[in-house]
Amino acid sequence: MNQLPPISDRDLRRATLCQLLHWLAAGRVHPEGLAEVYLEAIERLNPQLNAYVGLSAGLLREQARAAQHRRRDGVLGRLDGLPVAIKDNFDVAGWPTRAGLPGRAQPAQGDAHAVARLRASGAVLLGKTNMDEGALGASTDNPHTGPTHNPHRHGYTAGGSSGGAAAAVAAGMAVAAIGSDSLGSIRIPASYCGVYALKPTHGEISARGLVPAARRLDAVGLLARSANDLTVLLQVLAGYDADDARSRRRRVAFAPPDWEPGNLRCGLLPDLAAVGVEAAVIDVFEDALSRLPRELGERRQVDFSDWDFARTRRAGLFLMEAEMLSTFAADLDDAEHPASERFRRMLSYAATKSAADYAVADRVLDAATLKMRRLFAQIDVLVLPTTPQGAFPLGGAVPDSQADLTSFASLAGCPAVSIPMGTLPDGMPVGMQLVGARGSDLRLLELAEVCAATLDAEPVYPVEPRPLA
Amino acid sequence: MNQLPPISDRDLRRATLCQLLHWLAAGRVHPEGLAEVYLEAIERLNPQLNAYVGLSAGLLREQARAAQHRRRDGVLGRLDGLPVAIKDNFDVAGWPTRAGLPGRAQPAQGDAHAVARLRASGAVLLGKTNMDEGALGASTDNPHTGPTHNPHRHGYTAGGSSGGAAAAVAAGMAVAAIGSDSLGSIRIPASYCGVYALKPTHGEISARGLVPAARRLDAVGLLARSANDLTVLLQVLAGYDADDARSRRRRVAFAPPDWEPGNLRCGLLPDLAAVGVEAAVIDVFEDALSRLPRELGERRQVDFSDWDFARTRRAGLFLMEAEMLSTFAADLDDAEHPASERFRRMLSYAATKSAADYAVADRVLDAATLKMRRLFAQIDVLVLPTTPQGAFPLGGAVPDSQADLTSFASLAGCPAVSIPMGTLPDGMPVGMQLVGARGSDLRLLELAEVCAATLDAEPVYPVEPRPLA
Repeated sequence: MNQLPPISDRDLRRATLCQLLHWLAAGRVHPEGLAEVYLEAIERLNPQLNAYVGLSAGLLREQARAAQHRRRDGVLGRLDGLPVAIKDNFDVAGWPTRAGLPGRAQPAQGDAHAVARLRASGAVLLGKTNMDEGALGASTDNPHTGPTHNPHRHGYTAGGSSGGAAAAVAAGMAVAAIGSDSLGSIRIPASYCGVYALKPTHGEISARGLVPAARRLDAVGLLARSANDLTVLLQVLAGYDADDARSRRRRVAFAPPDWEPGNLRCGLLPDLAAVGVEAAVIDVFEDALSRLPRELGERRQVDFSDWDFARTRRAGLFLMEAEMLSTFAADLDDAEHPASERFRRMLSYAATKSAADYAVADRVLDAATLKMRRLFAQIDVLVLPTTPQGAFPLGGAVPDSQADLTSFASLAGCPAVSIPMGTLPDGMPVGMQLVGARGSDLRLLELAEVCAATLDAEPVYPVEPRPLA
Repeated sequence: MNQLPPISDRDLRRATLCQLLHWLAAGRVHPEGLAEVYLEAIERLNPQLNAYVGLSAGLLREQARAAQHRRRDGVLGRLDGLPVAIKDNFDVAGWPTRAGLPGRAQPAQGDAHAVARLRASGAVLLGKTNMDEGALGASTDNPHTGPTHNPHRHGYTAGGSSGGAAAAVAAGMAVAAIGSDSLGSIRIPASYCGVYALKPTHGEISARGLVPAARRLDAVGLLARSANDLTVLLQVLAGYDADDARSRRRRVAFAPPDWEPGNLRCGLLPDLAAVGVEAAVIDVFEDALSRLPRELGERRQVDFSDWDFARTRRAGLFLMEAEMLSTFAADLDDAEHPASERFRRMLSYAATKSAADYAVADRVLDAATLKMRRLFAQIDVLVLPTTPQGAFPLGGAVPDSQADLTSFASLAGCPAVSIPMGTLPDGMPVGMQLVGARGSDLRLLELAEVCAATLDAEPVYPVEPRPLA
């Protein structure tokens, strides 16, 4: 049956989810063999990258064995045998949900909705990935579990708060991962690590069993090695959940792309420097745009002169901090396992704010919703860099502006995709963000796929990260 | 053409909106004549009822004349010539939007969305109706504009905060009215005044141009003299408004009733006394239920043992107060036209509350949403009294519990209809409330119409209120 040469471990770790599904279907690889390849990579690389904070080789092998048996019976889920990582703020039955905090040893009673969906589709759960403390941050430099290093350069941040998940996908330690994105937590690490990310329309994937940050912003986000991989994951995970108050009933089943070919109206910000984007990022972005004359058709400058990106980000951050005061009340009281001084200080600041301040910040979300609605009456997609800068060294100053370009899509509930768009002069990757109207997730992903195919035919994942400095 | 006898002024003032539309279409009454009948009633009765706080006979006659001309040309809107009242927290171009506060003399630049829709359908705007100060209350005992009296008994409250609107409809001073309902402000006065009310699904009617109380709760509500009248008004007013962030896109056009005839699952609370409903109201409610064996089919007791009605109401009230601190910031600063001590005290209390308190209260709304979703998987409609009591004397103690039975539908975003269900021993009316799943507005109204037809074939509106005591 298998007259073709075996696939190398390296290729299995660089392959997209869609490629692996094909190889699994063709019998060129088996779930147990695939699991061993990923497990070996994790055991070898995780000590230097620190992407995983929870792993059980035994449980992993057990799941792979079950997938292998299902394959023999011909009864398969959509992702049967695919190794997937889970950010440590999702409940996985029997595992603690640490959410980057030092206490929280209690194992979860059940799976989060997204985890249950992955399991039901046959995915093999690799383990729990590192994140910022309480998901409040964007550098995954966690005071309790240590920093996650960027696979492209040791000593550099992987971004956050889903940094462990993005590093695992980039370094061939997971085919895909789920994380959370309230202001950019899945897109920022995707930009810094050179992988693909989707923050879906708010409510598209149930957030039940995800530790809440700010319910009006929280989205289950996806990380993978291609836009098509994100589409497959979205189709597995999306859908109405009656037990999640914020779950969204789609008016129609996912619409196929209905943008007119050759007539895509693409919105661009007139002055990226004015909104704090670094010159090197602008250069990479403009070079990428110049290579996409067909994919990103008619270009229009959009007016954001009435919009304060930093204010939007701060409003969202404040809503998160205020809600975290109740989400993490027990953690803040846990003297035996104290949260960091920084975390306590950020939440103490929110604790001095009034209910009226909250209502005012919440109105910024309504304003963002209207802004985006008006925008998407004029354009089909908004294209901009995912982050104002690339990855920076761990241990130094953390730029305030990391989420400035991602947070407004969160506040408006719009879907946003990040794809790798090129390399900065320091050799680090940076992402291009495509933002669409609510519900346009599939159209965005189709566009992202054709853009990515033009920009970068070969994946450049650092499956063997540079050695320690 | 008109061989039939003329219709008496009294009948014109007791008629439903649907009846008047028919008489107008048949040429048995004309817009200008109708306007004069209503204007005469307002001029005669308003001094004792105090339902209107803003009126211009000139503007009223001008609109009626325009409607009459349109009728001659055969180009008619749905409500052409119908006299409708507007609660004084909706913008009407050229009129101040006082919202029950003493300042706010600035005329509105444009019409609220609902007002514009009424105007576009040819309705004749009668004037602005009295309300609680800032819509914060349920008795329409306004310290600046005076109390609105219940048309059924002078010296008794009309309920609130849309008390002026409900009294106008009950006393034949308006065919219908629009008001706002954030926790029960349209249903409570409907219950006390013996008229019909709809609080639609949240977002069904755009709230643009309505002074915000709490955006997640605010609904444009309708008052009329039959359930069918409410249906006509809803069809005129409902629809997506891209300029209102909370406007709701319906998945389908208003669904026709799809409840199985003879198989309606009707939910009832097991113990109304335990949730604070007065014994006399329970008697009227049980008598009404006993007369509706066919209309309200299979009856099921529903479990609300996990639900604290008072806590729900308090959470909603707190969200309103917190948001009002910004809505009414200028009013609170206006030393020349000071708001009442009570109003300032309520908002000062909210001002001492923290952002974390707000997030906690906001979570009660998610809990209410889930509670109602689970409930409407088991039943089609929840039936309960609209208010725990009937109208009470003005100037005395105001019961805390007025909104306990209405507010949970607001928190869950569900539609709710109030219909008159009978008379209390003191001669005052009280309403029955039908609550349905989000989006079931039309089905609820159809059910309300058949229940109302059985309960009360003849309208009992006090078009000539009892004389002053």
